[in-house]
Amino acid sequence: MSATRPADPSEPSLEALVYRSLGVGAPEALVELLPTLTDDLAAIDQRIQQVLGSTYPRLTEAASYAVSAGGKRVRPLLMAATARALGLESVRPIGALAAAFQLIHTATLVHDDVIDHAELRRGRPSVPRAFGLPSAIVTGDYLFVRAFELAAEYPRSIILRCGESCAALVEGEVLQDAGRFDLTTGPEHYYRVIERKTAAIVAAALASVAEIAGAPAEVRDACETYGRSLGIAFQIRDDLLDVYGDPDLLGKPRYTDLREGNPTLVSLETHAALHGPEREEFERLFGLRRKQPGDLFRLRSLTDRTDVARTVALAAESWAERAVRALDPISPGPYRTLLEWLARGAAARRF
Amino acid sequence: MSATRPADPSEPSLEALVYRSLGVGAPEALVELLPTLTDDLAAIDQRIQQVLGSTYPRLTEAASYAVSAGGKRVRPLLMAATARALGLESVRPIGALAAAFQLIHTATLVHDDVIDHAELRRGRPSVPRAFGLPSAIVTGDYLFVRAFELAAEYPRSIILRCGESCAALVEGEVLQDAGRFDLTTGPEHYYRVIERKTAAIVAAALASVAEIAGAPAEVRDACETYGRSLGIAFQIRDDLLDVYGDPDLLGKPRYTDLREGNPTLVSLETHAALHGPEREEFERLFGLRRKQPGDLFRLRSLTDRTDVARTVALAAESWAERAVRALDPISPGPYRTLLEWLARGAAARRF
Repeated sequence: MSATRPADPSEPSLEALVYRSLGVGAPEALVELLPTLTDDLAAIDQRIQQVLGSTYPRLTEAASYAVSAGGKRVRPLLMAATARALGLESVRPIGALAAAFQLIHTATLVHDDVIDHAELRRGRPSVPRAFGLPSAIVTGDYLFVRAFELAAEYPRSIILRCGESCAALVEGEVLQDAGRFDLTTGPEHYYRVIERKTAAIVAAALASVAEIAGAPAEVRDACETYGRSLGIAFQIRDDLLDVYGDPDLLGKPRYTDLREGNPTLVSLETHAALHGPEREEFERLFGLRRKQPGDLFRLRSLTDRTDVARTVALAAESWAERAVRALDPISPGPYRTLLEWLARGAAARRF
Repeated sequence: MSATRPADPSEPSLEALVYRSLGVGAPEALVELLPTLTDDLAAIDQRIQQVLGSTYPRLTEAASYAVSAGGKRVRPLLMAATARALGLESVRPIGALAAAFQLIHTATLVHDDVIDHAELRRGRPSVPRAFGLPSAIVTGDYLFVRAFELAAEYPRSIILRCGESCAALVEGEVLQDAGRFDLTTGPEHYYRVIERKTAAIVAAALASVAEIAGAPAEVRDACETYGRSLGIAFQIRDDLLDVYGDPDLLGKPRYTDLREGNPTLVSLETHAALHGPEREEFERLFGLRRKQPGDLFRLRSLTDRTDVARTVALAAESWAERAVRALDPISPGPYRTLLEWLARGAAARRF
């Protein structure tokens, strides 16, 4: 087993993180929300620390390592913003649920890194790399278990919605696995995968917040649609960044999807846009189970010959606009504006 | 993906299974319980089928495969017997919980088979072998998720007890992993591992049944102690069978613990009983990360030179007797007799 690791000094503060999530050029009205949002995220982080700091030292170590590279906190931030947009005066009523969804998210990242043989995650060794495959598998299980314990604070309808979104998530993983190395699966299959793998859990998280806030059904549906559309925008952008992002900003290498043969909108649209021998070459290289760096660069340069980077960016933006439109039933105010801003940010982000 | 598999015709009927669990020489009073117990297990199986037969066909396939090699149904049988010993007229009130615990157990077997690179489980290819490693990981996750959805039917105290026992279980896995290839860990570490890995979940399951049955605290504690002691007896016997069992009866090869370097009471006691060069040889061979068949046979023949097979069998029996004694606060009757019989059977079983 590895020794306990010190907190990474390069890890940004929560405030810096929220600031970064708002992005450059955020309106003053949103920047003013910064202290409140930072406090909200800190309260959610504290719930996570509480539930992990248990009588199981060995698990706590690996689980805390997985959680401490906390990433962008997109889900907790969205949940806090939704809670406040719906009139909650504090995140306390949704704190355990936000912690649960963040742990579920972390659990799936840990298991993803086992499946994808990922070496790096958020600029550090991945959990399987740092603790070994057996520990990574059970650490993911442990995070799931703790998440469900947190969810047990809520009414059964919320536990079930949480569970169903997890089931959708793992179904998304299986669907994705079934379509590996195969570009004939097409965009429909891609959307089916990301709707389950990424969007379902955001939709469930925000619909649950609406339920806890006592919002009417119309608003709950709005939150669900907003979450789903934003999740899709986020994932499309993620897949674009896997090819065109800056590895230093992302904290992981590019071309993971190409290497692992996961069809994304980028590779599917490239495949559709190419013709003749170039198309055949793209298909052949994409289908290779073991790719050399040269294969990946060639796939990238074939992608560059198309207009796909732009069309995929536009697809993400169009899903972000759907998310924004879904917010109509929610009363205008700074937190609704924040939700709009976060949706557009998910489709435009560089990390 | 593999095609859907037909139900294995060699799979015994539930009735045959319960009959086999009772074992040779069961008193007539217990054999008379057979129809009721078979119905109880069928009702629990049905809950499992219901929750798995969802809108996620790909997951359902692998999950049903994992579940359908249903094994001995030790946990559901113990839960049904406890429910009836405490006066419940039907297993309906505990059906979802028994299904949940069976799914949790199955989930951990699937992940164990990934970790241990197991090829066979219950006489068939293991889930990772049949469906691949990525599917096996997410199938385990899916089974956990469905288990927690089932548990959501119950009061929070029961969900939390269920969650805590799962946390203990994964902690047991991590502890076990930390002690691999190391015989200096000693019996104390071994008991700490199996108490968490195997016994905690049986204890939690039976304490929960007592709570659902409205039993007083004394009886709930009795059920918990019974479950914990029986779980320990069961695991010690399991570890003995890994060296001395019949692979055909077990449905899996022997010497898994020796190969994977998991210290058990068998290897720990052998190590303690040997002297001089034989002891050194045992320690060295046990510590090999990659063992040849000859290494395993030598480890076995060194074990044969000691009295360990007998002392370990006695240790299992002594834990079974502790389980039996724990039942004192429960009113005598055929189902309490069944629980006694099952505890002794766990320590004497050949498969």
